[in-house]
Amino acid sequence: MPQYWPGLIETYRQYLPVTAETPVVTLNEGNTPLIPVPSVAAEIGKQVEVFVKYDGLNPTGSFKDRGMTMAVSKAKEAGAKAVICASTGNTSAAAAAYASRGGLKPFVIIPDGYVAMGKLAQALVYGADVIAIEGNFDKALEIVRQMADAYPITLVNSLNPYRIEGQKTAAFEVVDALGDAPDWLCIPVGNAGNITAYWRGFCEYHQEQRCSRRPRMMGFQAAGAAPLVHGHRVEDPQTLATAIRIGNPANKALAIAAQQESGGEFNPVTDDEILAAYRMLAKQEGVFCEPASAASVAGLMKHKDQVPSGATVVCVLTGNGLKDPDIALQQNTDQFHQGIAPDLEMIANIMDL
Amino acid sequence: MPQYWPGLIETYRQYLPVTAETPVVTLNEGNTPLIPVPSVAAEIGKQVEVFVKYDGLNPTGSFKDRGMTMAVSKAKEAGAKAVICASTGNTSAAAAAYASRGGLKPFVIIPDGYVAMGKLAQALVYGADVIAIEGNFDKALEIVRQMADAYPITLVNSLNPYRIEGQKTAAFEVVDALGDAPDWLCIPVGNAGNITAYWRGFCEYHQEQRCSRRPRMMGFQAAGAAPLVHGHRVEDPQTLATAIRIGNPANKALAIAAQQESGGEFNPVTDDEILAAYRMLAKQEGVFCEPASAASVAGLMKHKDQVPSGATVVCVLTGNGLKDPDIALQQNTDQFHQGIAPDLEMIANIMDL
Repeated sequence: MPQYWPGLIETYRQYLPVTAETPVVTLNEGNTPLIPVPSVAAEIGKQVEVFVKYDGLNPTGSFKDRGMTMAVSKAKEAGAKAVICASTGNTSAAAAAYASRGGLKPFVIIPDGYVAMGKLAQALVYGADVIAIEGNFDKALEIVRQMADAYPITLVNSLNPYRIEGQKTAAFEVVDALGDAPDWLCIPVGNAGNITAYWRGFCEYHQEQRCSRRPRMMGFQAAGAAPLVHGHRVEDPQTLATAIRIGNPANKALAIAAQQESGGEFNPVTDDEILAAYRMLAKQEGVFCEPASAASVAGLMKHKDQVPSGATVVCVLTGNGLKDPDIALQQNTDQFHQGIAPDLEMIANIMDL
Repeated sequence: MPQYWPGLIETYRQYLPVTAETPVVTLNEGNTPLIPVPSVAAEIGKQVEVFVKYDGLNPTGSFKDRGMTMAVSKAKEAGAKAVICASTGNTSAAAAAYASRGGLKPFVIIPDGYVAMGKLAQALVYGADVIAIEGNFDKALEIVRQMADAYPITLVNSLNPYRIEGQKTAAFEVVDALGDAPDWLCIPVGNAGNITAYWRGFCEYHQEQRCSRRPRMMGFQAAGAAPLVHGHRVEDPQTLATAIRIGNPANKALAIAAQQESGGEFNPVTDDEILAAYRMLAKQEGVFCEPASAASVAGLMKHKDQVPSGATVVCVLTGNGLKDPDIALQQNTDQFHQGIAPDLEMIANIMDL
């Protein structure tokens, strides 16, 4: 029988850098479903079991909530009255929600003209002031660092060390659900914080003998934004999977360590492969994720010959598909039949009955 | 420590009309967070505790998933190869996701020209064929009934009796989380299936002595679509809370029984009150729901003088705010500052630091 889930920090307190004095700012994040995806498993065969860790069901719709409950709780503990980040996507949404909930003021700095307002809807909803400055994204990053130095505002960008601490709990949940670590962990890699966090989580649980093994960390990058695949920074990263469109990952060194220690790999997936996995997950499994999230499943399908017989594989789905409805619509126009006469036979014909 | 959550049917199997032969079609729905909302409680005072049951974190983003796991599992058990509904919103999304997952073909019938394609994005994503027929919504309803009679297709509209069975599990989860039933249950009322389901859940748990009491069922309708408040059908229901824009609720009789047996009430809330609660939940509590969902919190605030001292109140939030990003954006334009020079002092000034 279920019990009250108090959020990540209370659940995994012993593994996290908090004390009894830390004011816990939580939206009862985490505890997201691990969903079997039998049609993916069937395409691989070999008695492989495949699950998706659907972190799009966190309170603001992405895995960023795991890190933000930690980052904002620690900011509040340190006496901050505001938080700041440069982000146009999931980070700004999570930062705004947790800051507002904790009584801190959220600020988001973005490059002027860089993004449509729709992308910022969540940050605005959750009460952030969004300031679009003249200059590019690097300038926005520079500004948030300077603001955090000069004013009593905490930076909650990926430089904030507490974010990875919170995010590692996703690995704990996977082990708790399966009873052990999976053989493979497939994960989209953009800024490389999440692969770092998962690996840390598996290592800590393994250390505590809560799992008997650690998975191979299989990181997948969009082909047009694959610095870890190529071994060098990408100047002008391109992919429709915006959440992983990053040319110079902040957590590069830690991600490479995770890959090497785990015997894992970094591999590219094309946008077409990402979209094929994205559509397949929705239409066959009933799971609607962000395009970037589907990179994990696209990568698994692409490398299915490498999967050992009988392996257990977990693919990380980082964000909710509802965050990007425009891409969803573009992919599915042919199922919309308009101007049909209200005639049973005619309708049955369209339905192919 | 957490365990694997297998979805509603496995968790509450003993309370549901399923057998060992029922093929369970699940997305691990349910298990949604019960989130304390202290700023709402503070406005009421009197040591009242207030929680929101955030059912927007179900797999397709609304409470409809609870009913649809049951409806589709039973349809599959009965040998159906397809399901059909007339819906432009949460029902069509849930029907499409569960049907596709279960290997059944989903069909959605809507009135031609009635809705923007954006509203249907989810149903399309999950693989539904959407057929827009000439005629109004009543005509669409008539067609789906006729199609279900004439062809081997299961109707999963609110007429499907298994939907309420699945939805009642939300009441079980509330009791399991709190350790007892709340004093008040505040809930948006449109088609009146959910208030019916919650009441059934509380009654069954009470019967089994899993709770010591049953809550007062406080149903809230949009003022422009309030047939249960007025005691008669509303011909042309009007409210921006589209999920409860219903003039003639399918479950009217059962909802009135729930209200009467529980000593509850039906009351109206205006669109302005709904929007005020919607904004407050996001900006102060970090919880982003559909406008219709906020009717429960708007109603609680409006009737706060009636809340007994020390009471525990649960407000049901039926859907995820990401489902309706346009309303979100309209509400928050003044926090967006464009064309700002990248100058620390100027930015600090905007931030009011």
